[in-house]
Amino acid sequence: MASQIGEKLKVSIFGQSHSEAIGVVIDGLPAGFEIDMEKLRAFMSRRAPGAGAHTTSRKEADLPRFISGVVDGITCGSPVCAIIENTNTRSKDYSNLRETPRPGHADYTAFIKYGLAHDIRGGGHFSGRLTACLCIAGGICLQYLESRGIRIAAHVSEIAGVCDRAFDPVSPELSEVLGDAPIAVLDASAGERMMKEILAAKAELDSVGGVVECAAIGVPAGIGEPMFDGIENNIAKTVFGIPAVKGIEFGAGFSAARMRGSENNDEFCIIGDEVRTKTNNHGGALGGISSGLPIIFRAAIKPTPSIARPQASISLSKSEEKTLEIVGRHDPCIVPRAVPVMEAAMAIAICDMII
Amino acid sequence: MASQIGEKLKVSIFGQSHSEAIGVVIDGLPAGFEIDMEKLRAFMSRRAPGAGAHTTSRKEADLPRFISGVVDGITCGSPVCAIIENTNTRSKDYSNLRETPRPGHADYTAFIKYGLAHDIRGGGHFSGRLTACLCIAGGICLQYLESRGIRIAAHVSEIAGVCDRAFDPVSPELSEVLGDAPIAVLDASAGERMMKEILAAKAELDSVGGVVECAAIGVPAGIGEPMFDGIENNIAKTVFGIPAVKGIEFGAGFSAARMRGSENNDEFCIIGDEVRTKTNNHGGALGGISSGLPIIFRAAIKPTPSIARPQASISLSKSEEKTLEIVGRHDPCIVPRAVPVMEAAMAIAICDMII
Amino acid sequence: MASQIGEKLKVSIFGQSHSEAIGVVIDGLPAGFEIDMEKLRAFMSRRAPGAGAHTTSRKEADLPRFISGVVDGITCGSPVCAIIENTNTRSKDYSNLRETPRPGHADYTAFIKYGLAHDIRGGGHFSGRLTACLCIAGGICLQYLESRGIRIAAHVSEIAGVCDRAFDPVSPELSEVLGDAPIAVLDASAGERMMKEILAAKAELDSVGGVVECAAIGVPAGIGEPMFDGIENNIAKTVFGIPAVKGIEFGAGFSAARMRGSENNDEFCIIGDEVRTKTNNHGGALGGISSGLPIIFRAAIKPTPSIARPQASISLSKSEEKTLEIVGRHDPCIVPRAVPVMEAAMAIAICDMII
Amino acid sequence: MASQIGEKLKVSIFGQSHSEAIGVVIDGLPAGFEIDMEKLRAFMSRRAPGAGAHTTSRKEADLPRFISGVVDGITCGSPVCAIIENTNTRSKDYSNLRETPRPGHADYTAFIKYGLAHDIRGGGHFSGRLTACLCIAGGICLQYLESRGIRIAAHVSEIAGVCDRAFDPVSPELSEVLGDAPIAVLDASAGERMMKEILAAKAELDSVGGVVECAAIGVPAGIGEPMFDGIENNIAKTVFGIPAVKGIEFGAGFSAARMRGSENNDEFCIIGDEVRTKTNNHGGALGGISSGLPIIFRAAIKPTPSIARPQASISLSKSEEKTLEIVGRHDPCIVPRAVPVMEAAMAIAICDMII
Repeated sequence: MASQIGEKLKVSIFGQSHSEAIGVVIDGLPAGFEIDMEKLRAFMSRRAPGAGAHTTSRKEADLPRFISGVVDGITCGSPVCAIIENTNTRSKDYSNLRETPRPGHADYTAFIKYGLAHDIRGGGHFSGRLTACLCIAGGICLQYLESRGIRIAAHVSEIAGVCDRAFDPVSPELSEVLGDAPIAVLDASAGERMMKEILAAKAELDSVGGVVECAAIGVPAGIGEPMFDGIENNIAKTVFGIPAVKGIEFGAGFSAARMRGSENNDEFCIIGDEVRTKTNNHGGALGGISSGLPIIFRAAIKPTPSIARPQASISLSKSEEKTLEIVGRHDPCIVPRAVPVMEAAMAIAICDMII
Repeated sequence: MASQIGEKLKVSIFGQSHSEAIGVVIDGLPAGFEIDMEKLRAFMSRRAPGAGAHTTSRKEADLPRFISGVVDGITCGSPVCAIIENTNTRSKDYSNLRETPRPGHADYTAFIKYGLAHDIRGGGHFSGRLTACLCIAGGICLQYLESRGIRIAAHVSEIAGVCDRAFDPVSPELSEVLGDAPIAVLDASAGERMMKEILAAKAELDSVGGVVECAAIGVPAGIGEPMFDGIENNIAKTVFGIPAVKGIEFGAGFSAARMRGSENNDEFCIIGDEVRTKTNNHGGALGGISSGLPIIFRAAIKPTPSIARPQASISLSKSEEKTLEIVGRHDPCIVPRAVPVMEAAMAIAICDMII
Repeated sequence: MASQIGEKLKVSIFGQSHSEAIGVVIDGLPAGFEIDMEKLRAFMSRRAPGAGAHTTSRKEADLPRFISGVVDGITCGSPVCAIIENTNTRSKDYSNLRETPRPGHADYTAFIKYGLAHDIRGGGHFSGRLTACLCIAGGICLQYLESRGIRIAAHVSEIAGVCDRAFDPVSPELSEVLGDAPIAVLDASAGERMMKEILAAKAELDSVGGVVECAAIGVPAGIGEPMFDGIENNIAKTVFGIPAVKGIEFGAGFSAARMRGSENNDEFCIIGDEVRTKTNNHGGALGGISSGLPIIFRAAIKPTPSIARPQASISLSKSEEKTLEIVGRHDPCIVPRAVPVMEAAMAIAICDMII
Repeated sequence: MASQIGEKLKVSIFGQSHSEAIGVVIDGLPAGFEIDMEKLRAFMSRRAPGAGAHTTSRKEADLPRFISGVVDGITCGSPVCAIIENTNTRSKDYSNLRETPRPGHADYTAFIKYGLAHDIRGGGHFSGRLTACLCIAGGICLQYLESRGIRIAAHVSEIAGVCDRAFDPVSPELSEVLGDAPIAVLDASAGERMMKEILAAKAELDSVGGVVECAAIGVPAGIGEPMFDGIENNIAKTVFGIPAVKGIEFGAGFSAARMRGSENNDEFCIIGDEVRTKTNNHGGALGGISSGLPIIFRAAIKPTPSIARPQASISLSKSEEKTLEIVGRHDPCIVPRAVPVMEAAMAIAICDMII
């Protein structure tokens, strides 16, 4: 039950970093929906490691092969399964991690849970590589939502303390995200300063984290359920499935906690024929149910735990302390690659509530 | 599916603010567990509106009546149902809300979802009163967890910008929470300053929000599942079921996003016979699985949306703008009462993963 | 998770035979549906023990009290909870059963599962009395389905080897069921002969079982999912929730196993504008999905296990064999009362697939 | 949600008869379990079409390729995915079925549900071929159960009216099943007579159905939940996922409906140190919970719907009646091949309750 999410649209992810393949089963997509495969590939390439100095040099084709549920590019109603074959894996890099857990990784907790059977190669099932599967499912969901007038986009709102400007909460300028830039931001200069911080951290054998902001427009009012199956619950549950996420906030979020009610309350108004709110501190959900305003969340991503500096760890077999030096290819900052993953997570959560 | 949570321990909440009763069904508790009813009542009284100037004057006995699943105070293995009869309801206060939705409330979104059938009296199913049911279930879970060596406590970490000191992330001082004070804090003087802010807001017919910090100690390593059923996912999904929550973070949370990896990574060490980390920026979960360190989260609570000031709203029937003045009894700050509710939510989520 | 069923319409049953109350939570009913309370009571009275010689003399009002989710008889969108207070319970009758399990009952298996904490009074959660809760939920579902043109009816097709005629599989004559007779049959004389068998068994301190046939007409083609969430899977899972059911078959069922393909296959034809089959050996479902033909099942009900004759059992505390004599009020045949329960179960299962 | 089953052990099946591959994801297996791949292949070969006159001539290697969750033959704790590539598919055989639905098949209901997008080639997702995936999951579950002392075996109890002897309900002789014979029976002569009936039907371009009996021994008392998650509910829900199953009964099943209570009740006794019943009409489950006696069910399988005789059908596009002649390779009787599939279904259902 670990690696599956959704009630009406069930997304089930499998695979380890170095297993034969990773993949995803998507159960519940309507029959007759045409997947734009080119668009899906373009979406997934935004997550793939690039040539930039800030990303790992491991090449991943990461192109999904659809082995069921799709005939001539069109969903046939039965579960869709897509897989990505794993190639170009350097398993030897990870040989000592079973003995000496990496700080900030799941090596230790997985050892407690699975014992020596845990597939630690490349992080196993905990690898960020599994987010490629989330992107397959999410990329399809994004296309489906678009067919229903719903658009989702994210940008890096902060890296190493350098902030991009925020989306306008009432009318987020999704198309202004610089999707082709090395870092997807609204303000190009912010992106440049972020990149400097990333490179500075890299030079010091260190890493940095950040925040991604994600918005959905066009979600009709009335989606979501009160209490435990609301907009926030379901998006949060999905987003915490992305490795390294440590926090999430909707609308004004933690800032709302510092406002007065008179300031935070979003007053209703009528624009054209539509009921709207003048501001959007509520982030598009009231009582768990969509209000018709943009749904907006921000997620905090911790700095990449794999750093080249020596770190204190332990020997699990000898129960003694031991210094660890991690060898291998690691992003000094995964936040830029997390942008499409957030969009995917949000799309999956909204699809499940809307299908 | 809205009002239910859990896989192994299913908690199903029902009732509206002014229905005959509210209640909860708890399916999955082990048979033979003795519920300390006195302790449960004491726990629930922490949520009940008090006599203090900062809480509503509506008196609620809020004592649960167990109508199934418990024989002589001991669970018998079949589903536990407890109800609280609703009395002392002033339904007339809410008569105009069906027509004019309150900013910051679910009146409008519920109207879109349920139409005129929505039970708007007292907020219906969206009322904060329903958290009493969460506290019945959570209060029992807290006792069950305690029997397994797990303790949970929360405190107000911030109201209106006034901060309490934080829990020590490695060894949170749960017993130092001033549970009997009007505001449960670690630092009494912070509580006094918070109260001043609440009263100031009240005097100005306004309200304030805040942040609650909640910690669990004694959760063994290895609890939780990777990806979508991890510690963070399940706690977040439950906590967003509490009205007014707009954000959640674990461990260093959003601060982690501003740290370097070398700073955020929690290095492993051995203390006595146990594997521990020297710091606890990860908040007790790595890869979704508990590490044995305290599980710590903070949740942002928006200011009470019901304020006595005139606010802009609309007439739903006439589709025109209209000023709304809310009459009735409302807390200028619900954060103090949210403290046991957070403990309850965390206890339910952890029980579901541990039973 | 034991006592709950459904994905979109979740029905959660609680209570023991002698707890303060029994009840049901129904989550997922559309808002704005008016429940005909008089009709619901009439439906439930068909399950209630009557004055006839073949039913227990325990009087049960069994009228549900709606404590949430319904305002002025109309569903408001939030979970519906209805309870039935337990009165007129004779707990002393059951005092020795904890020590000496009744053959054919769950006393022994419940003891293994719950130990001494099991509430054995009146059978606890395993009591046939809990089917009253199924009838509350099912009775509402029947009304809802009727509003969508779907009708369900059952009759006793067999008791003690005496058979009623079967429904016409293509056009079941639902309205011809003699619902007011002591035994609901199509052929009054069959009912009389069944009653003779029941009374004969009673006179010999024994009991008899039987078969109920249940049909739904008006279910549109295309309902249900392939493989594990089909018409048959979901109805079977619900029907086996009724105590004493030991088998279920759809359409020609076990007889189909003895047919040739050319005989069992239902050939397609066109009647009016509609695609139909000439025969209905498939029982309304092909590949788990409704065909538009009537959905028909038969369920086998074992004879009431509580009989007044001495039976061999054991002493659990002494681990030795011991003769048991059951004292109390027991139906010599529960099949007649099971008729509305089957309708309820079918209605719940279909509602869950159709809502 | 269609093609997935289980709570703790989730089995998710994907693929169509002629898609690139079919497969299964198994989430919830304990880490560190060694799969005996040779044994799994042997198990699966019992389902594969043989060389015998009574089975289709389509060759299927049907050997699963494990692409995740298994390292060196040992489960690593993350979801197991195994696929079978589809080769040797003759898609042209099925070209006219989209227009003219086959009686007894899901062609029509799938058309109503999925429209023209339905992948009708080879029956698509409804194909009996998908039971190979059930056998992968079930074959692993069988091995896991065996490691915990639980054994499951099935035999053909009836084909075309010819009966094998039944298992002894108290001590089923699992090892006496003639597993290597063309038809797995207890009584070799019954198998020979069944084969004659199959060949006779084949000669007449017709098909026959039958009944499979399946037993599990070694399931400890106390497994399963009351009401909707009991032994019978879960096995029934899984078994109805096998194409062509039209009925299921446990223990004495429909025969129990014709017994007196004094005859059907299984009296308790003590054998050695164990509580047992003298007979096993209850089929191993009382109140949904296992009693420690063998769990025994029989499932009715309709005759293969694909027969070479001309049959009445319709033209979906023209809405007129039309004669259909099915071309292709079809078993005149699938009952022999269903034997391991029943074992697989039972193993999956029991694993889900026991893990």
